[in-house]
Amino acid sequence: MPRLFAIFALLFGAALPASAKDVHDTVSTFLLDNGMEVVVIEDHRAPAVVHMVWYRAGSSDEPRGSSGIAHFLEHLMFKGTTTREAGEFGRIVAANGGRDNAFTSFDYTGYFQRVAADRLGLMMEMEADRMVNLQLTPEDILTEREVIIEERNQRVENDPGALFREQRRAAQYLNHPYGVPIIGWRHEMEELDMDDAMAFYDRFYAPNNAILIVAGDVTADEVRVLAQEHYGPLPANPDLTPRMRADEPPQLAERRMVFEDPRVAQPYVMRTYLAPERDPGEQEKAAALTLLAEVLGGGQTSVLTRKLQFETQQAVYTSAFYSGTSLDDTNFGLIIVPSEGIDLPAAEAALDQAVAEFLDEGVDAAQLERIKFQLRAQQIYARDNADRLARRYGRALTAGLTVADVQAWPDILQAVTEEDILAAAREVFDRKNAVTGYLTGPSTPEVTQ
Amino acid sequence: MPRLFAIFALLFGAALPASAKDVHDTVSTFLLDNGMEVVVIEDHRAPAVVHMVWYRAGSSDEPRGSSGIAHFLEHLMFKGTTTREAGEFGRIVAANGGRDNAFTSFDYTGYFQRVAADRLGLMMEMEADRMVNLQLTPEDILTEREVIIEERNQRVENDPGALFREQRRAAQYLNHPYGVPIIGWRHEMEELDMDDAMAFYDRFYAPNNAILIVAGDVTADEVRVLAQEHYGPLPANPDLTPRMRADEPPQLAERRMVFEDPRVAQPYVMRTYLAPERDPGEQEKAAALTLLAEVLGGGQTSVLTRKLQFETQQAVYTSAFYSGTSLDDTNFGLIIVPSEGIDLPAAEAALDQAVAEFLDEGVDAAQLERIKFQLRAQQIYARDNADRLARRYGRALTAGLTVADVQAWPDILQAVTEEDILAAAREVFDRKNAVTGYLTGPSTPEVTQ
Repeated sequence: MPRLFAIFALLFGAALPASAKDVHDTVSTFLLDNGMEVVVIEDHRAPAVVHMVWYRAGSSDEPRGSSGIAHFLEHLMFKGTTTREAGEFGRIVAANGGRDNAFTSFDYTGYFQRVAADRLGLMMEMEADRMVNLQLTPEDILTEREVIIEERNQRVENDPGALFREQRRAAQYLNHPYGVPIIGWRHEMEELDMDDAMAFYDRFYAPNNAILIVAGDVTADEVRVLAQEHYGPLPANPDLTPRMRADEPPQLAERRMVFEDPRVAQPYVMRTYLAPERDPGEQEKAAALTLLAEVLGGGQTSVLTRKLQFETQQAVYTSAFYSGTSLDDTNFGLIIVPSEGIDLPAAEAALDQAVAEFLDEGVDAAQLERIKFQLRAQQIYARDNADRLARRYGRALTAGLTVADVQAWPDILQAVTEEDILAAAREVFDRKNAVTGYLTGPSTPEVTQ
Repeated sequence: MPRLFAIFALLFGAALPASAKDVHDTVSTFLLDNGMEVVVIEDHRAPAVVHMVWYRAGSSDEPRGSSGIAHFLEHLMFKGTTTREAGEFGRIVAANGGRDNAFTSFDYTGYFQRVAADRLGLMMEMEADRMVNLQLTPEDILTEREVIIEERNQRVENDPGALFREQRRAAQYLNHPYGVPIIGWRHEMEELDMDDAMAFYDRFYAPNNAILIVAGDVTADEVRVLAQEHYGPLPANPDLTPRMRADEPPQLAERRMVFEDPRVAQPYVMRTYLAPERDPGEQEKAAALTLLAEVLGGGQTSVLTRKLQFETQQAVYTSAFYSGTSLDDTNFGLIIVPSEGIDLPAAEAALDQAVAEFLDEGVDAAQLERIKFQLRAQQIYARDNADRLARRYGRALTAGLTVADVQAWPDILQAVTEEDILAAAREVFDRKNAVTGYLTGPSTPEVTQ
């Protein structure tokens, strides 16, 4: 494996900029008078633009008991407005050769279109329209509610792994709404109605709660003129309150669960720990955890892969995951899928042993260098994908970070030391903050507790 | 043991009424025009009254992130109003030879005074005053916040068993606010302020969200006149909305936790299952669970005591508990405190075996009769305690039940059959709905998972 990376470095190494700063020098940001934040990422290699509006409102901003309303509203935003009929938005985008979509997560809801650069004004006009003029019918509610429930059926109810992860997440958070699934609890989705949708819309859909991101063949001045024309007239919501979520209390005892489902063909162990997220101006710990996940589980040379798949062959797959872009405390996760004949308690013990050995042995310097090189390479590649770059800013800004934080992040990642990674590991691997789950088929003696 | 109960029956049996209906024939109920519900329990044996106001607002009605505000407000209600200074309320009660107190739970906040019957009007005048005229100072907030935090320190932080039960409860509820402690999470209590208190007060403290309960030496007509005079003029809150909590999603995997604390001298195992509560007009299942808890864990002749303490001597203490008076799904719990030399996994296995044997063997008819006899006796004794009787109505009415439900309850308990108990046990003992917790001292090999 090392050979592959060496060749990779030889081929691309010279092309990598010394600092990631160069990557982001075409990003500008400004505010409209009504409080709408604007981010422009210039990229003139193709005559296209990505136009995105992100709301600082996701599933974790929902009222208790109305889970799924953020995602439901995302669907309903493709219905009519006072001047456009249902579905017209998408038809106009398509007729102009573009494509559009939307996404909902814990911390945000986002809408995007990719179109020829000269259609940017039209996109803004339509997006501004549905930010304030959404007009739903009772029929819209009934039909689209069926759609989201069917989406839950397909994505969650029919997938024991998804159900398991949902229950795990609910056990991970004792107080914070991150324990509630983005798509919603089914019994609450069934009760979502027009009032719920409009209350969420009226509360959160306003220019002072939105971030406009335009990436592509356009200048900041052009965007400013168009944004002022289309979004500028929209009134700010004067009742918008600071975003406050319920923090976790101290977690004082590990939660464990065995999730049994006859549909499970491949049992596995998943452990997640509550973990700090990237905070504005304080991204160092999250950077160390990002590298820790790579060191432990990032590919063929990672610690878990080497120890558990190659050396002892106790696992057919291992993984470590962490996503620091989050408004509130996130998760650091470990997964082991055991080899045939290894039961889940043995797999968990092997995982724990591998992590303990890693904490003793420390970080392999050459591996860390390879990972940092890859991260720098990824920064370069991201330049070629305006959509991905725009999403990166959208996720970060709706998670409370700034453009400066996004731009500082690559250098902060590069500055992480072996000691930082070990310190972060020792801090985050606290079983009191953990949920350990077994996903397994029907009960067998070896996994019954 | 059986002999003791036989004597008990001989002594008191003839005095027990055939039906519990006779016990409640002096209870009347009516509504004031502003929506305030009134319950009068006549008892003329002593010239005293208990005066209670219960609000349909407890800790589970708090906004997310402001845990503890219901209880904090309960404390603050003893501060001043527009016409009375802080502490004056209690001083007047004492000066009139009475005593007063208050209590907060998940579903209610209640205030009571016990005074001579001729002071009832004065109590109403003062309670009506603080229902609408509470006037807090910034100093009140600061000093009383210290008090509730110190209360948490003493009751929870210094008691590993309380911390354990708090974490267990948070793991029991995946979605419902019953997972949040009544007293509040400490980090949220520290942030509670005047706005939080007044928002809760303005939202919930109004006659149409209150229940007046007067028990003692007074007639319904006298109470009606006084209540109309003092509470009648208070305006209803027109914005009061139906009480909606977030229901639990299906619980699909047992949660397990090992709570280690060096202060724990006596380890134990506690398992709780999510369990149905008493519902208006549908109390049969809750009645069966009430008797199940008695059959399993109610005293010296109970199943767990007999099997685990006397026969196998694996435990020094066992218990089963269930409280059906709850607005939403409640818990059914089992506890085993093992004998010296029995580790917690062995104790849990012994507990499971005892329950499994019970499900096979069924309910002992003689034991069930003894329990029913005791329950009837308790109904009789309750007549002698106006305070306890008034609390029973207050708890039930704030949990969504009616006076008729309270009055029907004793007969519903008496009608429970052995088959009902076994059916309820089979339904409630579903490990998917359970949290199994070990409370233990510092980690030792036998309890490490």
